[in-house]
Amino acid sequence: MIGLATPLGDVLKMDIKTEITQLAQQAKRAAKRLAHLSTSVKNSALSYMADGLEAQKEKIKQENEKDLAYARSKGLSSAMIDRLLLNDKRIQGMAKGLREVALLPDPVGEVIRMWRRPNGLEIGKVRVPLGVIGIIYESRPNVTADTAGLCLKSGNAVILRGGSEAIHSNVCIAKILAESAQKAGIPEYAIQLIKTTDRQAIYEMLKLDKYIDVIIPRGGEELIRTVTENSTIPVIKHDKGLCHVYVDNEANLKMAEEIAYNAKVQRPGVCNAMETLLVHQEVAPKFLPPLIQRYRQAGVEVRGCEQTRAMVPEVKPATEADWDTEYLDLILSIKIVTGLDEALEHIARHGSMLSEAIVTENYTKARRFLQEVDAASVYVNASTRFTDGNEFGLGAEIGISTQKLHARGPVGLEELTSTKYIIYGSGQVRE
Amino acid sequence: MIGLATPLGDVLKMDIKTEITQLAQQAKRAAKRLAHLSTSVKNSALSYMADGLEAQKEKIKQENEKDLAYARSKGLSSAMIDRLLLNDKRIQGMAKGLREVALLPDPVGEVIRMWRRPNGLEIGKVRVPLGVIGIIYESRPNVTADTAGLCLKSGNAVILRGGSEAIHSNVCIAKILAESAQKAGIPEYAIQLIKTTDRQAIYEMLKLDKYIDVIIPRGGEELIRTVTENSTIPVIKHDKGLCHVYVDNEANLKMAEEIAYNAKVQRPGVCNAMETLLVHQEVAPKFLPPLIQRYRQAGVEVRGCEQTRAMVPEVKPATEADWDTEYLDLILSIKIVTGLDEALEHIARHGSMLSEAIVTENYTKARRFLQEVDAASVYVNASTRFTDGNEFGLGAEIGISTQKLHARGPVGLEELTSTKYIIYGSGQVRE
Repeated sequence: MIGLATPLGDVLKMDIKTEITQLAQQAKRAAKRLAHLSTSVKNSALSYMADGLEAQKEKIKQENEKDLAYARSKGLSSAMIDRLLLNDKRIQGMAKGLREVALLPDPVGEVIRMWRRPNGLEIGKVRVPLGVIGIIYESRPNVTADTAGLCLKSGNAVILRGGSEAIHSNVCIAKILAESAQKAGIPEYAIQLIKTTDRQAIYEMLKLDKYIDVIIPRGGEELIRTVTENSTIPVIKHDKGLCHVYVDNEANLKMAEEIAYNAKVQRPGVCNAMETLLVHQEVAPKFLPPLIQRYRQAGVEVRGCEQTRAMVPEVKPATEADWDTEYLDLILSIKIVTGLDEALEHIARHGSMLSEAIVTENYTKARRFLQEVDAASVYVNASTRFTDGNEFGLGAEIGISTQKLHARGPVGLEELTSTKYIIYGSGQVRE
Repeated sequence: MIGLATPLGDVLKMDIKTEITQLAQQAKRAAKRLAHLSTSVKNSALSYMADGLEAQKEKIKQENEKDLAYARSKGLSSAMIDRLLLNDKRIQGMAKGLREVALLPDPVGEVIRMWRRPNGLEIGKVRVPLGVIGIIYESRPNVTADTAGLCLKSGNAVILRGGSEAIHSNVCIAKILAESAQKAGIPEYAIQLIKTTDRQAIYEMLKLDKYIDVIIPRGGEELIRTVTENSTIPVIKHDKGLCHVYVDNEANLKMAEEIAYNAKVQRPGVCNAMETLLVHQEVAPKFLPPLIQRYRQAGVEVRGCEQTRAMVPEVKPATEADWDTEYLDLILSIKIVTGLDEALEHIARHGSMLSEAIVTENYTKARRFLQEVDAASVYVNASTRFTDGNEFGLGAEIGISTQKLHARGPVGLEELTSTKYIIYGSGQVRE
């Protein structure tokens, strides 16, 4: 009798494996048809999906209430509970997002370039969907609608795996989206959500390279690590954002103050917010005290190096760990540096290579910063907060990639496509 | 005493781990400097590398002789031994390849596009090196020179891991390349080769995502699988090539014969050669007998479906396994199909999605084939053999990718780069 636990466990795991494999096979079949749908069918589906969310908002709120009740019973923080919450405004926000994606140009079918070879072959490079995209995300249920919309518009089938804390909301939203899309002629299984909250489902999914073309993890470092270490499917990573602003001794200090303030305070909980401010030692005595005063008025907890604390004693001491911490909160670490070289070194060592800025009027230092900082986005005289598909004018994004392969920076519709070569011949053979 | 084996084994593995980690750290440091080298320094290094190989060709042949002797003692096939062999002509070929790479445009620093936002931000997307590239390959030692040249020109540091059968040749070539490059001002450790032939080195390498930006495996299916399953580093895969030519009932049959002959016979051992010929049932009786006759004269072993064998009885029977076999040899399987739909289905099921061709004069069928075949390269009325960086006019290639992420089709200098956004502001902050 003692041995029973293992076989039973195996049976359950086999069920999950079978279930996820079936989902992936269905997605692959749907992807074949999705790839050839006209833009107008896809846009009409996005519009149906938006209408569906609005029409069934009471149902969504009911299901969301189950998630909220569970979260409260588990004693989750009010910030976490707020992230889970869906109200009328947020549901309308999801619908609006889908309608905006409908307005974006369709990347599929775009001929990026086409040329003729000396032997007469005409070779074109055409954008095509990636195929099946697996999204693994945490917490906010609006991600379900955002990512489903972007995947659909780019002609991809999607398999969604949300967090267990939002399972009722996610199941409800995904069902509405899938049913609404089908009304417009989208194939069944184009949008699917994994209903089991068993983590085993993630591990099974990550091995299905035969059916799934790319995995996009969105969440904390642990999730990213789990996915990277276990996936045989190519991954587009959305790592942490540990961003810096370096204020040079030749900066316009008024401009520097506005940028440094904006980069920290305007929305501290996002990946492109600044976590560490680097200030040239020559301008620090003049620049820092009024800025720190302003930070404190905005409720920012300031931690600083010894030199900073010598200038403004109320500042808490920053430890080595601070330089490597993504606060995602109203906390800032400040370091005074001897110049551009030390700033570049600090960024190379501690930055997450997402969004980095210099404030300077010096041409050569601006140019060096742009060339030498190896990040997805490098700024001169602007806030790090602009690293965003919409702000770049690329349209909605599924996230911001910190890896170098395939997509770096905002991941929008174009980054959700691959390419193929099409070759028009007239009987050419190779010599 | 019995316990001793394990600790000793661990010590050895620790040594390999330390060694590979050190190599990777050195490569990362070199990559930082390589990224900012001028094109002229890189081109001069490529020229020195070519000169170095030619000047030391006797030494290379001596070292190569050690590999050949070992291969003979192991009873390797003459084809395998021929792939290992380096003679004057092949060494000159490597040198010529490096000089050709010097002539290609430098992808690094290219501004792919640049635009201005309503708020005045100027955003540019710039090509930058990937960083550190790990290449894992088998057999032919000329790959050492080819890949080192392409990685250098694209501003990347490279860590080479060749097969044990070519270890003496590879060590010798890599040493010459690295020393020659340094004479031109290339940083130390820009080109490194793993000297141990212990497979453990591969596993250690695949976990160093902190230092290595991309892994490119070149070799058989087993190697590709090992890399995919064990790598936490993004991979650019070079899978097998199982390519088809479909001869439609509306084909120009003379053209179809030349293409089908060329795709199989001109160079059967490469990934873009045809493995299976699909023929519309209406034209098969007229088309196949003379073509099969011609194949047989060229020494091609033909295996066919029942219908083919009914037409030409000398043809051997093809089994189900044949449709999934990449022969890389003078062997061909032939299947008679009822039309385009069956051909598309067969290709989707058995093709490796590398290089697929239709021969037809029918506009609608040509267009359907181009759209519906989900391969890296899709041809109308031309041989599958053109899938190649040089034939496409893209210059030398490091291989041909069959994956959809980052690079699909020939992987040349452009595919060995990433991008970053550079943003010029004048004090912009986010509202």
